[in-house]
This record gives sequence, structure tokens and C-alpha cells, in this order.
Amino acid sequence: MSDAYREMWRALDMDLEKHDVFLGGLPGAFSEVFLQQENRPAGMAYFDNALAEAHGGRIKEILEQKKTGRPVVGTFCVFVPEELIFAVDGISIGLCGGAQFTVPTGEQVLPRNLCPLIKSFMGFKLDRICPYFQAVDFLIGETTCDGKKKTWEILNEYVPTYVMELPQKKTEADLTLWEGEINRLKEEIERRSGQAIMAEKLAAGIKRANARRTALARLYRARQADPAPISGKDALLISQLAFFDDPERFTSQVNSLCDELEERIARGEGVAWKGTPRLLVTGTPMALPYWKLHHLVETAGAVIVGEETCTGTRYFAGQVAEDGRSVDEHLKNLARRLMAINCACFTPNKERVEDILRLAREAKADGVIYFSLQFCQPFSVEGRLVEKALQEAGLPVLRLESDYSEEDAAQLKTRIDAFLEMITA
Amino acid sequence: MSDAYREMWRALDMDLEKHDVFLGGLPGAFSEVFLQQENRPAGMAYFDNALAEAHGGRIKEILEQKKTGRPVVGTFCVFVPEELIFAVDGISIGLCGGAQFTVPTGEQVLPRNLCPLIKSFMGFKLDRICPYFQAVDFLIGETTCDGKKKTWEILNEYVPTYVMELPQKKTEADLTLWEGEINRLKEEIERRSGQAIMAEKLAAGIKRANARRTALARLYRARQADPAPISGKDALLISQLAFFDDPERFTSQVNSLCDELEERIARGEGVAWKGTPRLLVTGTPMALPYWKLHHLVETAGAVIVGEETCTGTRYFAGQVAEDGRSVDEHLKNLARRLMAINCACFTPNKERVEDILRLAREAKADGVIYFSLQFCQPFSVEGRLVEKALQEAGLPVLRLESDYSEEDAAQLKTRIDAFLEMITA
Ligand code: SF4
Ligand code: SF4
Ligand code: SF4
Ligand code: SF4
Repeated sequence: MSDAYREMWRALDMDLEKHDVFLGGLPGAFSEVFLQQENRPAGMAYFDNALAEAHGGRIKEILEQKKTGRPVVGTFCVFVPEELIFAVDGISIGLCGGAQFTVPTGEQVLPRNLCPLIKSFMGFKLDRICPYFQAVDFLIGETTCDGKKKTWEILNEYVPTYVMELPQKKTEADLTLWEGEINRLKEEIERRSGQAIMAEKLAAGIKRANARRTALARLYRARQADPAPISGKDALLISQLAFFDDPERFTSQVNSLCDELEERIARGEGVAWKGTPRLLVTGTPMALPYWKLHHLVETAGAVIVGEETCTGTRYFAGQVAEDGRSVDEHLKNLARRLMAINCACFTPNKERVEDILRLAREAKADGVIYFSLQFCQPFSVEGRLVEKALQEAGLPVLRLESDYSEEDAAQLKTRIDAFLEMITA
Repeated sequence: MSDAYREMWRALDMDLEKHDVFLGGLPGAFSEVFLQQENRPAGMAYFDNALAEAHGGRIKEILEQKKTGRPVVGTFCVFVPEELIFAVDGISIGLCGGAQFTVPTGEQVLPRNLCPLIKSFMGFKLDRICPYFQAVDFLIGETTCDGKKKTWEILNEYVPTYVMELPQKKTEADLTLWEGEINRLKEEIERRSGQAIMAEKLAAGIKRANARRTALARLYRARQADPAPISGKDALLISQLAFFDDPERFTSQVNSLCDELEERIARGEGVAWKGTPRLLVTGTPMALPYWKLHHLVETAGAVIVGEETCTGTRYFAGQVAEDGRSVDEHLKNLARRLMAINCACFTPNKERVEDILRLAREAKADGVIYFSLQFCQPFSVEGRLVEKALQEAGLPVLRLESDYSEEDAAQLKTRIDAFLEMITA
């Protein structure tokens, strides 16, 4: 990223020196993880460039849109209905953090025994090296896990942070609570944007988010082919960029890529030989630029064919019905998405086990990696139930817990190698 | 505890050998922590004996009551309305775990990076060395922190565990949700006990729980005197026993003890010299038999004059209005207690900061210890806000995080000594 953007970053009150250090490390990592892959789909060029311009061209574009009065809103969870942001022509950015670089700074205000995803995004704000965090008008947090729930209170000292209460069960009473929360978020967005949310624009917002979900589901389906037409790493990168990119452009690029992948499938062409061990990954989200697990697994000779994560299938689960005819009906339809996403934050959460079994079958997975970020209690406690269910279904499962540092890479590699050996034996 | 109870324990399907090892360690610890204190109130004799008979006489009594059809119910949080259990003549036991002994067993089914309180109670069940866990008909869990919320799913494999959804905020919508949850708990208890809950008995249950809260508040007030008429350790032991003992007998004993303490206060008599540094402890609950922090602090020459914890003021916060005239009114009154208990599980939770400042003032505390059990994310994240508020109020604060092992005792002692030196300088 070039000097052309320095003025923009300065205007965003960024710490230019620290930012230089942060950005300096990315091209090398990106090249090692992505560019050295063989036989990449040509359609990845768009996404490679989107990543390269993540702190540059995309921010420039957002700032221009912001100048025309469009609000910029940060979110941290797939339950937060971006459709309401779209309905006021807002720009919605997913701000979960995936970088070790900012973790130590996050630890200045947060306990060390906390999920790195949280410490990372807090560090991005404190370090002032994330142009998105600098550009947002406000944030929408949620009461999903303890770590995030309590972190909003601190983050709110730095950026206005509105908190939605996500229920913890999925009964009728919870749906009622969530409908109320969706209504209150609508009012908050109206208040902050100075615009009333109207049925037509909300309907368009729903269509836009649905179209993006449909495209990502299509990408997921393409990965079911054997040989896999795209690597897990590339698919992960695409999912990660969904949180930052312009939704329409992103959707159309995913669809173009899927055209290419479907041609590959028709030709029997893939990124790995037929017979390469196929793995499903399930667990905590993997926010940009976290690629560690995928890189280790695919370098070890397997291919990842699906992610039951929020940077995977949970992102596009739960299409919102498009048949609403009033704002109220649309809001109700948005609320119902609650029932379709199975996050470990809920209790009970048996449907997630069913999802994983189904996804493993669809993706013809030879095994499953259960991945938890360190200190993520919902996903780590739930791991035992998932592991038992997979074992009963005869699916090999490897449980891994890790953070964003590279310290455990060798140890993870050993365990992944042993798992692959066991699967292919 | 004697051979007289072995038959009883065997009938409860306990692991007698392991139980012997567990019980074997307690008298020594108890004598060191409690009996060697000077100038203890005579009224402590009842509580010393209650502890000695915790696995013996008290269990015998409960089993006899159970034979007459009274349900035995385990709970884990002060938000769970025991009044509903009392209304069917049930016996309510608080089952949070405070022993390192059972932590390794808990870790067989739970992640290591989890609060020891949770791992300990899970271990008590798996090890079969807690006669209460063996005697209960069912458990009532709640969705407070992530760790407990997800642990119920596993515990339910061993003991039927009903889960209440505690809201995460305190808005009107949350009160509505909680009222519904209280209603649903009522139905569950009726179903399990085969008894309808009637207004009169519910009113009596409310009175019984209120009387216990009133007695504990009286004890708390007595501790405000300087010199303190009772040690923090003894007060903690009493709080811990509140979760196990017969409520009426317990209340009457606390009141007798308070008579004695108030006489001491009138005479200007205390357990420590006037001028001994007085500390308020705030943070996570300290379940039986966790005495580590209090023992370290009071051995170091300070006296603990209050606990803003669930084995302290949060236990008796929120009297339930007694003016209800129907079951519905009583249930609404029970639900309103939600607003009066300020646990870190809620967001925001500013009222807790106000509580701590007020309690420190009332108790004439010279400093505050902010104590979190390791991996407790709600209390550890909230620590920063509390610490800032205390500093602004000019109150010295020491933040400590610990688990149930003795490994960090020397390190804690060093930090406590330094803190006391700073306070008295
Ligand atoms: S894992 Fe759960 S809490 Fe996290 S983004 Fe996904 S749905 Fe939200
Ligand atoms: S990975 Fe787990 S701990 Fe981290 S933000 Fe998501 S749910 Fe919370
Ligand atoms: S600390 Fe909170 S969750 Fe724990 S017992 Fe107290 S009120 Fe319940
Ligand atoms: S101390 Fe914290 S982590 Fe442990 S049970 Fe209580 S709220 Fe949960």
C-alpha cells in the first residue's frame, strides 16, 4: 500500500508509524500463504486485490460514501442484522480482529485470559491502526459470549457502542426478546442516521444480504466436489472479505468465481488430487488476517472443504424471508433468523451437532477439526458434545485450541500430521 | 466424621475411598484457618459444628426429610428463587464448588481454561464424594456466565438439570423475560414435586428467605464496627453455610450470634485491635471450603469487614416484597429481585460500582481487594472499571486473580503484604 494513502490515514487519526509496521508484515505472509498455492482459480485475483486494498482503496471508497451522508457502522457478530444498516444506505463492516499484532495492546485494558479475537479488535482500536475502526460512526455489539458482552463497556469509552441483547436460548420467549431487540436497533439506527427506515429500502437491504448469502452458499456447494475446485485457504479469505467489501460487488465477484469453479468441476479439475484427505473445520470464527490453521492443514497435504464457523457456513445460514410487506413484517422476518444460526452461545445447541454431521456428509469430509480460540468458553465446553457425536457417527475428529501467536505452530503441525496419518491409514 | 455415616454414604452411591481422602484433609485445614483465631465469638460454635456435620448430620436430616416426600434441589446462583422450592417444602442446597480436590476430575469433561468453581462442582458429581449432589432430585442451573451456561449441558447427563435463562441486561424487556422464567420454574417445580404452589405457602417461603437475608444483613452491619467484632473468615464461613443449612435454624443462629456481636460492639470489644487495616473484598463467590484469600489477608494482619460477593452482600441483596396477595403477585415480586443484585454477568453493571463504593464507606474500609477466580471473564473484565472508580474515589485497590490450588499462596502473600504496607504507610 502506497504513500498515496498516507494523508487519508493521517486524517483518520491513525498511528502511521505503528501502521507501517503492521502493514509491513502482511505482503510476506500473504504471499507465503496464498500466492504460492498451485492452480488457483483466476477469479481469486479480485479477492487478492481486495485484500491488498483493504486499508487503501476500500477505505477511500468508504470515506467518499461517508461524505455523502452514509453512516459507517461496525459489527462483530453474524446475528446483528446488517439489513437494517443497508436500509439507511449505511456501510456495514465486520470488525472482529484476527491479528496477533494488536493482542498485547488489547491486554492493556483486558485480561490476558480472554479470547484473542476480542483482545485483537480492542488492540486495533487502541493502537489506531485499523482505518475501519477510525472511520466508523458507531458500533453494534451484542451479548453473545461473556468476553464480548463485558468488552463493550470498555470499548464504549473509545467509540459509541450500542449493545443488542442476544438471547441465550431459542424458546418463544427468546424470539420475543429478540424481536424487541431488532425493533430497538431499528430505532437506534434511525436516530443515529437521521433517516426513517421504510419498508421498500428494508426489503432491498434484505435482498442484498440474501444475495450475498446465496453466493457464499454456492461457493460452499462447489467445494463439495472431489477434487475440490478451490482451496480452503482461498475460500476462507473470501469469507473474511465478506465483512469488509461492498456487498453487491462482492456478491457478483463470488458468483463469477463460482462460474469458474463449476466449470472446473465439470472438467474434473481441482486444486488437489482426487483422494486428498478432505477436512471440515468447525468452531470459532477466523477473522482477517488469521490463516494459521488453514495454512498448516493444507500445507500438510489435506484440503479443507468447509467451515462450520461464522467465517463459514454460519455467516450465510438463515436466509431472511423476502415476503414481508411492511416494516413490521420485515423486522419479524429478520428476527426469525435467530433460529437458523447455531452458535455455541446458545443452550442447548444440539442443532449445531446436526449441522456439523450434515455438512461433513455434504462435503464428503474424511475428518473434522474442532477448532477453538483459546479462552473461548462456549465453543470449548461444547467441544465435548460435538466430539462425542462425531465419534458415534464414525467421523474422526481432532480437537485443537490455539491463539494468534505462532508459538504453537510446530505443535499443531505434529498433531495435524498424526491426524492425517490416522485418517489415510 | 465417623463410621456412623458410612452406611448412609454407601446408600448414596458415594465413592467411599475417595471421600475418605477428601474428608481426611478438612479437619487440619479447618483447625489451622479457624480454630487458631483468637477471641472468636462463642456463637461460632454452632457454625463450626454445622461444618463438621456437613457430610454427616445435615445429610441424615435431609434424607429423613426427603423420605417424607420433600424434594431436594440443588442451585448455583443467588438469582435462582429458592422461595419457590420452599413453597413445596423443598430443601434447597447451593452446590457451587470450592475445593481444589475435585478440579482435576472436573477437567476430564471440561476445558482446563474454565473457572475452578465450575470445574470443582462438576468434579464433586463425577467423583461421587458430595452427598448433596448424590441426594438431590434435580438441579436448577442458569445462563449467567458462559462457563456455567454450557456446563449444564454436560451435567445434565448425570443429574437432571433445569436451566433458567437469566437476562443479560436490566431493561423492561429483561424483566418480562425473567418474569416468564420465574413462571416456568414454578411450573417445573410443581411438575417435579407433584404439588401445586399456593399463595400462602409461597408467601411463607418468601418470609423465610427474607428472614435469612435480614439476619445476614444484620451480621454485615455488625462488622462495620471498629474494632470488628468478628473476623472476615468467620463471617465468610457463615455465608457459605447459608447454602447448606436448614434456613430457619440457620437464621436463628445468625441472630443469636448477632446478639453476641452487638454486645461486643457495645463493650468496644473486637477480634482485632482498633486501627487494624480494614479491607472490603469484592468479586467472585467463594464457595465452601474456599478460605484461601481470607486466611492470607487476616494472617497478614488485616481484617476483612465485608464481601461484595455472592457469598457476601449479593446473597442478601434484594428483599422480596411481602405484600403479594396471589401467586401471580408473589411471582412478580420474586422477579423484581433481578434489579437489586448487581452481578458482573449483566451489562451494563454500573450499580455494582456504586454498591462497592457504598459498602466500602459503610464498612469504613481502608482498601479494597478485587478478587476474581481464574478464567472468570465477567468479573475480570469488569475489574478495570471498578478499579478506576475506586481510584477516583481515593480508595486503594488490589486486584488479585487466583484459583483453588495453593501454588500461588506465597505470591499472593507478597502482594497482600505490600498492599497493607502501602495502606498503613
Ligand atoms: S461465533 Fe457466535 S457470537 Fe461469535 S460471531 Fe458467530 S454467532 Fe456471533
Ligand atoms: S471466539 Fe468465543 S470467546 Fe471469542 S468472541 Fe467468539 S464466542 Fe466470544
Ligand atoms: S456471581 Fe453472578 S452468576 Fe455467580 S452466583 Fe453470583 S449472581 Fe449468580
Ligand atoms: S466465578 Fe465467574 S466464571 Fe465462575 S461461575 Fe461465577 S460468574 Fe461463572
